Amino acid sequence: MREVAIIGVGMIPFGRRDEDTLLDMLAEASMRALKDAGMEKKGVDAVYVANMGAGILQHQTSVASALVDRLSLMPAAADAVENGPASGASAIKNGVLAIASGYYDFVLVAGGEKMREVVGWKATDFVSTMTHPEVEYPYGVTLPGMAGMFTRLYMEKYGLTRDQLMDVAIKNQKMGALNPYAHVEMLITKEGIAESPDAVVNNPMAADPLHLYDMCPVSDGAAAVVLCPLELAQKATEKPPVVVAGFGQATDTHTLQERDDPTDLKAVTLAAEQAFTMAKMEPKDIDLAELHDAFTILEIAESEHAGFFKKGKGGIAVAKGETSLGGKLPINMSGGLKARGHPVGATGVAQVVDVVFQLRHELGDNRQVKNAKTGFTLNFGGFGNNVVAFVLRRAE
Amino acid sequence: MREVAIIGVGMIPFGRRDEDTLLDMLAEASMRALKDAGMEKKGVDAVYVANMGAGILQHQTSVASALVDRLSLMPAAADAVENGPASGASAIKNGVLAIASGYYDFVLVAGGEKMREVVGWKATDFVSTMTHPEVEYPYGVTLPGMAGMFTRLYMEKYGLTRDQLMDVAIKNQKMGALNPYAHVEMLITKEGIAESPDAVVNNPMAADPLHLYDMCPVSDGAAAVVLCPLELAQKATEKPPVVVAGFGQATDTHTLQERDDPTDLKAVTLAAEQAFTMAKMEPKDIDLAELHDAFTILEIAESEHAGFFKKGKGGIAVAKGETSLGGKLPINMSGGLKARGHPVGATGVAQVVDVVFQLRHELGDNRQVKNAKTGFTLNFGGFGNNVVAFVLRRAE
Repeated sequence: MREVAIIGVGMIPFGRRDEDTLLDMLAEASMRALKDAGMEKKGVDAVYVANMGAGILQHQTSVASALVDRLSLMPAAADAVENGPASGASAIKNGVLAIASGYYDFVLVAGGEKMREVVGWKATDFVSTMTHPEVEYPYGVTLPGMAGMFTRLYMEKYGLTRDQLMDVAIKNQKMGALNPYAHVEMLITKEGIAESPDAVVNNPMAADPLHLYDMCPVSDGAAAVVLCPLELAQKATEKPPVVVAGFGQATDTHTLQERDDPTDLKAVTLAAEQAFTMAKMEPKDIDLAELHDAFTILEIAESEHAGFFKKGKGGIAVAKGETSLGGKLPINMSGGLKARGHPVGATGVAQVVDVVFQLRHELGDNRQVKNAKTGFTLNFGGFGNNVVAFVLRRAE
Repeated sequence: MREVAIIGVGMIPFGRRDEDTLLDMLAEASMRALKDAGMEKKGVDAVYVANMGAGILQHQTSVASALVDRLSLMPAAADAVENGPASGASAIKNGVLAIASGYYDFVLVAGGEKMREVVGWKATDFVSTMTHPEVEYPYGVTLPGMAGMFTRLYMEKYGLTRDQLMDVAIKNQKMGALNPYAHVEMLITKEGIAESPDAVVNNPMAADPLHLYDMCPVSDGAAAVVLCPLELAQKATEKPPVVVAGFGQATDTHTLQERDDPTDLKAVTLAAEQAFTMAKMEPKDIDLAELHDAFTILEIAESEHAGFFKKGKGGIAVAKGETSLGGKLPINMSGGLKARGHPVGATGVAQVVDVVFQLRHELGDNRQVKNAKTGFTLNFGGFGNNVVAFVLRRAE
């Protein structure tokens, strides 16, 4: 296998983007990534688009063909990849494999979602289309509902507290407020009351024991990366290439109820193990991580299942500041899904973009992890039924 | 790059499958392919699902995760690939690249579509979601409409006749009637009148100059293949492996109107050239082809653009019987999309399955191309804006 590097990244600010179509967002993020790679429109061999909902939300298919046309990248090959909220990482994985095989040299991967076209219960319903079509969806199971039940079990088994969950939300909203690409810029306090003078909500219960601030917002957004073989990367750009040192993807039962232990996120553990094995690294070698905190509980549970903390210790680590800037393993210095936002098709790509910013040492003192050389991303599909992990390394 | 072989194929009869869900169909085709490969549930590393419309038609996402769960293939990786009506070939291409890279050994690719949940204009509207979202779809452009305009130009430029188009329909419906997996089993005559005693339609104009029998039906269906490295193929199964000798994928402008010459299907030419170059073969080396005859005009235009006949000669070749069984290059001995049916996500996979049947010499005298050793498939996305071609070869 050829080693693959990331030579360009691009992102647009997440949030409400009422003026933009899905295609507008994908194109803007792509152009930023191509410009960052110093490529503009030259030499892209293949394009992968990560998207979950264009069919449902925009009544649109063949999005990858439309993007290639918009960017005038013909005759580049173009496919869309869908893996629910892990579509972004799946698309990158397939781009990496295509280059690793030797078939393509330069691949653009763009992830995007325009979710705010639907609001309220319709947004929750859209997200619920990723649940089991026969034994979950028809009965009204929602992702917040699953997350609530999972949290309750986790509290019972490991002594996790509501305070620790709020620590995740406070940390991530604080970092989001510092990230120009983040959707949520509002600071919150321990009591769950927004500090911003124009905030009109407190922190009502949403899915017991999870409250409003335990959940990511519904966002529009897009992000993109440009990949090529490591041996071509140094020539292609003056910026330090970031190597895709390892990756992994694993599935678990589609439904939570069929798992022997519903608190055991086997696919997270497996995907992370695969990525670490391929990278010849261990969790202790990682300088920072972007985890899939669609719900605060997930950041903690993933940090444990990926091997960064022992089971039951992830919440304590957050409370102690070990996952804050300057801590042992800064997590979600982008603000995470919680504050950057979670336009589902974009998220897995955005996580990688944020780690690349870190590994290229391009962020300000208030977000940059000093001398960061290695990063980890985890993109969580369904309720942990399809998980993709990456280990990234700054090229020497 | 490691050479990749097809060691198992499976298909379910296409047509109206009101009793089956999309997942039922994908699972049944997959189980047949795994059984054919002698694998049952052992050792699948990754699953690719080709599907275009689950979001719109079934209000469902994460279909790949659902299929892995249904087949109990966890923790195999699983992604869905969408490229409009060429989703099937795109999914196989990505499965091939994943194995070629050395990362995965055994990959299942399943394509399926349940399209008959919508009928009449809603089916046409669904297909139209692959048109340009800004400059085509809102104005009511449909695929039959595009095909009609394209046909008129082709007739003007190359002297193609209505009779030649009907020859394609007659040939393919005749072959479909012999194929147990085909949707359309009805024979038609030159006058366009169905021969079957229970047929109630003649052949009305649909999109001038195309008539009803120039068009594929709206079908439900699924097909699947199992891929592995060629070096493992002989050990894995007693059936003759079929090598993926070459493949190509190319895009063109999303809209027909932006092409310098709207009759020039550049992406077909390029994708075929890429596939032939990789296979170190030429069109004359091919024993049979499965082309994307969603409209009769496309079989003729593709046979020319892929290099099998000179421009303007494809229609004459059909009329002379050169593309019939026993001819120089039998095309669509499965019945093609015209008669086997065109459940969009399934089609590209079904084309490969049909060529594998041929290259393994498993068909009866009325469909088997004698001593076939090489085959070609062409899967046509949009109106030729994203095309995928394969050259397949029976392993010695």
